Amino acid sequence: MAGTARPDEGQARRPRYAYLGPEGTFTQAALLQVTSADEADLEPCSDVVTALERVRSGDADFAVVPIENSVEGGVNVTLDTLSTGAPLVIVGEMLVPVTFTLCARPGMTLEKVRRISTHPHAWAQCRRWITEHLDGAVHVPATSTAAAAALLASGEPEPGFDAALCSELSARQYGLEVLAAGVADNPHAVTRFVLVARPGRLPEPTGADKTTLMVHLADNEAGALLNMLEQFATRGVNLSRIESRPIGDSLGRYSFSIDAEGHVAEERVQATLIGLHRVCPTVRFLGSYPRADGQRPHVRPGTYDADFRAAREWVGSLLSGYSRVEGD
Amino acid sequence: MAGTARPDEGQARRPRYAYLGPEGTFTQAALLQVTSADEADLEPCSDVVTALERVRSGDADFAVVPIENSVEGGVNVTLDTLSTGAPLVIVGEMLVPVTFTLCARPGMTLEKVRRISTHPHAWAQCRRWITEHLDGAVHVPATSTAAAAALLASGEPEPGFDAALCSELSARQYGLEVLAAGVADNPHAVTRFVLVARPGRLPEPTGADKTTLMVHLADNEAGALLNMLEQFATRGVNLSRIESRPIGDSLGRYSFSIDAEGHVAEERVQATLIGLHRVCPTVRFLGSYPRADGQRPHVRPGTYDADFRAAREWVGSLLSGYSRVEGD
Amino acid sequence: MAGTARPDEGQARRPRYAYLGPEGTFTQAALLQVTSADEADLEPCSDVVTALERVRSGDADFAVVPIENSVEGGVNVTLDTLSTGAPLVIVGEMLVPVTFTLCARPGMTLEKVRRISTHPHAWAQCRRWITEHLDGAVHVPATSTAAAAALLASGEPEPGFDAALCSELSARQYGLEVLAAGVADNPHAVTRFVLVARPGRLPEPTGADKTTLMVHLADNEAGALLNMLEQFATRGVNLSRIESRPIGDSLGRYSFSIDAEGHVAEERVQATLIGLHRVCPTVRFLGSYPRADGQRPHVRPGTYDADFRAAREWVGSLLSGYSRVEGD
Amino acid sequence: MAGTARPDEGQARRPRYAYLGPEGTFTQAALLQVTSADEADLEPCSDVVTALERVRSGDADFAVVPIENSVEGGVNVTLDTLSTGAPLVIVGEMLVPVTFTLCARPGMTLEKVRRISTHPHAWAQCRRWITEHLDGAVHVPATSTAAAAALLASGEPEPGFDAALCSELSARQYGLEVLAAGVADNPHAVTRFVLVARPGRLPEPTGADKTTLMVHLADNEAGALLNMLEQFATRGVNLSRIESRPIGDSLGRYSFSIDAEGHVAEERVQATLIGLHRVCPTVRFLGSYPRADGQRPHVRPGTYDADFRAAREWVGSLLSGYSRVEGD
Repeated sequence: MAGTARPDEGQARRPRYAYLGPEGTFTQAALLQVTSADEADLEPCSDVVTALERVRSGDADFAVVPIENSVEGGVNVTLDTLSTGAPLVIVGEMLVPVTFTLCARPGMTLEKVRRISTHPHAWAQCRRWITEHLDGAVHVPATSTAAAAALLASGEPEPGFDAALCSELSARQYGLEVLAAGVADNPHAVTRFVLVARPGRLPEPTGADKTTLMVHLADNEAGALLNMLEQFATRGVNLSRIESRPIGDSLGRYSFSIDAEGHVAEERVQATLIGLHRVCPTVRFLGSYPRADGQRPHVRPGTYDADFRAAREWVGSLLSGYSRVEGD
Repeated sequence: MAGTARPDEGQARRPRYAYLGPEGTFTQAALLQVTSADEADLEPCSDVVTALERVRSGDADFAVVPIENSVEGGVNVTLDTLSTGAPLVIVGEMLVPVTFTLCARPGMTLEKVRRISTHPHAWAQCRRWITEHLDGAVHVPATSTAAAAALLASGEPEPGFDAALCSELSARQYGLEVLAAGVADNPHAVTRFVLVARPGRLPEPTGADKTTLMVHLADNEAGALLNMLEQFATRGVNLSRIESRPIGDSLGRYSFSIDAEGHVAEERVQATLIGLHRVCPTVRFLGSYPRADGQRPHVRPGTYDADFRAAREWVGSLLSGYSRVEGD
Repeated sequence: MAGTARPDEGQARRPRYAYLGPEGTFTQAALLQVTSADEADLEPCSDVVTALERVRSGDADFAVVPIENSVEGGVNVTLDTLSTGAPLVIVGEMLVPVTFTLCARPGMTLEKVRRISTHPHAWAQCRRWITEHLDGAVHVPATSTAAAAALLASGEPEPGFDAALCSELSARQYGLEVLAAGVADNPHAVTRFVLVARPGRLPEPTGADKTTLMVHLADNEAGALLNMLEQFATRGVNLSRIESRPIGDSLGRYSFSIDAEGHVAEERVQATLIGLHRVCPTVRFLGSYPRADGQRPHVRPGTYDADFRAAREWVGSLLSGYSRVEGD
Repeated sequence: MAGTARPDEGQARRPRYAYLGPEGTFTQAALLQVTSADEADLEPCSDVVTALERVRSGDADFAVVPIENSVEGGVNVTLDTLSTGAPLVIVGEMLVPVTFTLCARPGMTLEKVRRISTHPHAWAQCRRWITEHLDGAVHVPATSTAAAAALLASGEPEPGFDAALCSELSARQYGLEVLAAGVADNPHAVTRFVLVARPGRLPEPTGADKTTLMVHLADNEAGALLNMLEQFATRGVNLSRIESRPIGDSLGRYSFSIDAEGHVAEERVQATLIGLHRVCPTVRFLGSYPRADGQRPHVRPGTYDADFRAAREWVGSLLSGYSRVEGD
């Protein structure tokens, strides 16, 4: 993952990665895209808040957590935890295709499955498949897809369900029998994960970067949202994601979680941030980092770094006429 | 709830309301704001999709489902189910304050509680309270807050948890002991529910109405979102909610779920809808209905119905000069 | 000039055209593009105001006056006279290339010319030519280019100048000797003339039309101008000309004279006019008429008449649900 | 005129002012607001182009020329001459109320006046007065209002007219009899004059300043004008004047002459200029100078210098995280 900040390899201490566990989740699959147990300590956490707080407290150097799912949308707890509390920044992103494996203890067959345990999000993403293949099957909620598999594998005599819907990695790790593979209502579903660190290390710009922001609006009017978006549009900065989030104290007030194309080291992104800082009561910078898909933005004429520099030099030359008057 | 369409009371048949069950949920509390078991059949459903499909199929006249929570944001499954499939429209909205009751079987005390069952959303809204009062307590997911209470009340010898976090209504209905009341990280949290029907009945405008829409953008550019929002702004229509939702087949494509101030019977809302229909590939009308809070919009000069009518008459007079030429 | 309204040829009375005289001006050349002395009474007037007032009073059916010059810009007196007083509408436009002829009485040579009479606008358009060919020559103002030629031709012993700078038509009509032909600093200079009538006759749309408007802004802010222009942009209507004009009672208040592409019979132009009527304190319609250059506008997707009609029908269908409730 | 640059009074050489002559014009009245014959050489010029060229060539230090009239609008020749050729900047502005004096040789009475000489612009501004008081009187064009008075005063036996319509200053200077004073269709008419210099001297900001610009658009679309104006609006810079001018080589292409509120030493004006430089093919800076009326702009929240500086510092702090990585 070129350009992403990593812990200083000269250090004696191995870097520590907290992630949304338990082992076998899709999050672990994302984590294994950036590091491995050979080179780092990998620490599963019970929830997203815990994983991120370990970075805040210094107990971990990095956290890997899900931020967006192509079916369900933004992961609220990640967006909200990044947006409040001590500053954290995203330094990398990873994409993981999301299809599930229906697995069980030996002896169970697909036809006999009546109760299925999994995380509610996984259930939501397989509802149609289940109606087609196991009509009438009931959902038994679990705290994660891997937790359902773990319970089955634990030997617990009455787990309360017949099968678990989990990742292929989990099924393998827990040695369960696969009743159905590639289960998903949408076979192209993908989840985006982020690598999070404390501020102080901006990944270098690669030309194909994203900048993530959290922005509050001045008021509730349509005009305020327009004004905010115009800050991007007048500098030719496209958005690849925008999610409204309630501010939490009442209905009707929203913050916006935004991924913009480009890196804060680029002039057009800086100009946009300056504009946002002026017109929005709160702007939180959540990182500039390389895109997982490597897609470079379409830069509009007049918005290249050189255009901004030339324009600033021109204005500087107008002012230097002024300075000369000052000096004589 | 003045102005909301109700089933024809002249009909012999009692109206049927499907709602997100089981009994005792906050949804039932919302339902009881618009009807009661004395005047209608109230049918709890296992999930939002089922409740809405019963209206689509004609098995119910109305459904009551949650649409937005002041802490967690839009209820994805409601937004998505309304936005696809056979048309449904919202004909009313209800607000329910959301605080929880921690309850248990007789003999349990607050200090002894280690495992708490509830719906994941309820857990998310009480996380801070639990850390403060029951640090280390573990979440046992349930399909609803009421389901957790029901299981406790059922006499099941090993429910797998010590206490349920549910609505006060549930605690009462199931005869559980209250260990803590008014539990909530945010004491002002409120959930918005909607009353849904098949098209054909628009509630009458009250002067304090909302119109709910689902809109796809022409492409992924910031410009497309700006163009869409300008359709509202140029007619002086404010938004009270905007939520982006992934379109579902890949990351990076979004639809927008929008609540606009005003009723489709008003000229400025009609003009906005005409503009959206022209510039957006998909616009879905999801109803015009009275606001639960009765708040009237600030109508900007030049956007009253009379302004639109006067403008149209003027243009008509210009054209009638044209017609006169045609006629002679 | 297809599509332009003409006087009813069935009438016994010949149509009367007032134009900015005297004979031999470029205005007469424009007039001869639409009619001739064989079929109409052609009445030269001493100034633009007089020509237009004759139409207002009914003493003439049409007036031909200049409205815009590619070098000097809008013709203020025409723009202002159309914009105030009893309504007049433009029903046609004519383009006339503007190059001048330097002419004199027999015996004069180019080298001897020291004093040149012509209208100030003509002088402005030949200044560079004169500096190059007759450096030091002095301007003697005349009320029109033709008036200068007429005075030379009149035999007046002391006209006060040596040569006249006028149209080729004038030089020929007054029998003067041509010292230099095709005189112009800009050889592509062109003047646009308009055919003006009383309201009641809109030329039929041809698909290549212009609509001329005069608009006051709500206040002096940049925002008011933006709001006004957005009325055009949101309906995909391009401007081919925009001229600010002081409102006349003080500096800092402006009206805008605008030519928009399209005909008021077209939906996107009607929608724009409705929007302008709502947001601007004054909008004056000054006619829809075929473009002299026959250039058809680029119509953007979503702004065709069919798009507007489909959108209105859709909104109508939403409302008819409403009406059905009303009716039962 | 506080804040306006003036020639260095320490210099032995007296400053030279070129102005639109002859003596007695309204331009001279404007000139006398900034200097006098006691302290400077005042040089009348035959036309605006000559006055401005004397500054370009170094033959004069300053020029005073009219730029805008509250009745007729922008003075084309001034706008166009400033906008092309070697750079000039406006360093001050002066307002002169414009009412006229009808004057004649002894013996003439108001009733007998049939032919009136004056500049065409003066004639345009008194047309209604003349129709009311001297109906049928004929216009004899002069190159300036003062020239008409001078010819009357010269003793020339056959001046070709009975009275001159000129400034009160002219009437006095030439010793003519006043037939009517305060002649003007609009008693509040005012002309704005500018003091022009070579670049190198920006007047200091006073808090009540104007910046004058000439801008070309990227293309002819309504969108291009909107984009240009948004550069002002997004930085809260209001316009006090905007005039479209044909670019001169054909109809349909326009440049815009703009007066913006504020001084280029102010952040919001600089940010606007940077934006214009990026999106417009040509931007010409024509000076920042104190307003004659001393009116201070309404500065919107978020557009004060301090807001821009705070925003830039914030973005700098984000980047310095980046730099620290660079440095270690």
